[in-house]
Amino acid sequence: MIMLTISEASQLDFGDFVATFENVVEKCPVVVAGVYDDRPFESVDTFHKSITTFVKNLCQKGQIGILRCHPDLAGKIAALGQLTTESTEEQKAAGLDDITDEEKVTMDQLNAQYKAKFGFPFVICARENKKNAILKGMAERLLNDRHSEVETGIEEVLKICRLRLNNIVSDN
Amino acid sequence: MIMLTISEASQLDFGDFVATFENVVEKCPVVVAGVYDDRPFESVDTFHKSITTFVKNLCQKGQIGILRCHPDLAGKIAALGQLTTESTEEQKAAGLDDITDEEKVTMDQLNAQYKAKFGFPFVICARENKKNAILKGMAERLLNDRHSEVETGIEEVLKICRLRLNNIVSDN
Repeated sequence: MIMLTISEASQLDFGDFVATFENVVEKCPVVVAGVYDDRPFESVDTFHKSITTFVKNLCQKGQIGILRCHPDLAGKIAALGQLTTESTEEQKAAGLDDITDEEKVTMDQLNAQYKAKFGFPFVICARENKKNAILKGMAERLLNDRHSEVETGIEEVLKICRLRLNNIVSDN
Repeated sequence: MIMLTISEASQLDFGDFVATFENVVEKCPVVVAGVYDDRPFESVDTFHKSITTFVKNLCQKGQIGILRCHPDLAGKIAALGQLTTESTEEQKAAGLDDITDEEKVTMDQLNAQYKAKFGFPFVICARENKKNAILKGMAERLLNDRHSEVETGIEEVLKICRLRLNNIVSDN
C-alpha cells in the first residue's frame, strides 16, 4: 500500500478515493464514498471526524448493519483464510492466529453467546488488545444491554478505522 | 448460487444472510445486514420493501455513497475484468461487452461528463436497457440537476437490487 499525504488523498477522484479507503470500515465502502464531499481534509483527524459523524448519524439499524459486516474473532472465516487483508493483520497482531485449543473453545463459546444475545458479532479493536484482554472483554461485554453494545461496538469500529487510516494516509 | 425460498432466507443466521445477499446492493452489504432484523419476510417483495425503506431513509450523503460504490458502465474496471459477478452479467445482458470502438468513445465521454457534473457515476439497471437505450439515457440524464439524479440513481439501484434478489430467493 502506497502511503499518501492527506493533501494527495483529498485530490483523488472519487473512484480512486473509494478504492483506496474502501475497507477502513470493514466491508463498508459506502462510508468513505459518502464523506468524499467533505474534502479537502486538513488532517487525518478531520477525515476521521467526517467518518465518525457519518457513522454516528446512521440510524441504529445502519449501525448494527456495520457491526454485522465484521467477521468473528478467530472464527470460521479466519479458519478458511477468507478474512480481509486488514482483519488478517489485526487478528494476528492480537495473537489470535496462535491460540491454544482451549482458548479456541472459549472464544467460540463466547462468540456464540454474544451473537445469540445481541444478534451481531463482538467487535473490538484487535490491534489495541491481546487475546487475553479480548477474552476478558467478551465475557464482560456479554453482561451489557443491546443498546450500549451497539454504541461500544461502533466506538471500536471507529478505533479500528483510525488505525487503518494511519496505514494509508498521513498529515502533510 | 443456490435458490432459496423466502422462508429459508428468513431462517438464515445473520452471517449466512449477509454472505448470501451482500451484493444485492453493489458493494454495500451493510444494507442487507441492516434490514436483517425485519425478518421474517413474507415475500421477496416485503424483503425488497425493507431494503427500499432503509436506502430511502439514508441521508443524501449516504445515498450518494451507495451510487459511488457502482462501477462505470463499460469502464476501466470492466476492461480490467474486475467487476463483481453480478455487474459482469448485467453489463453483458445490456450488450456492453460487445460495443464498437465508436460506441466506446461515446460511452467514455458521457461517463466522464456525468461524473464531472454530479460527482458520482451514472447508474442504470442494465438488465432493463440495451446499450443504445443506455447511451440515450446518459445523454438525457446529463441535463438533470444533481438532486434529481441522486433520486433517479437510487431508483435504478433499487431496480437492480430487485433483479439480483430474484436470482437468489423466491416466494414460497
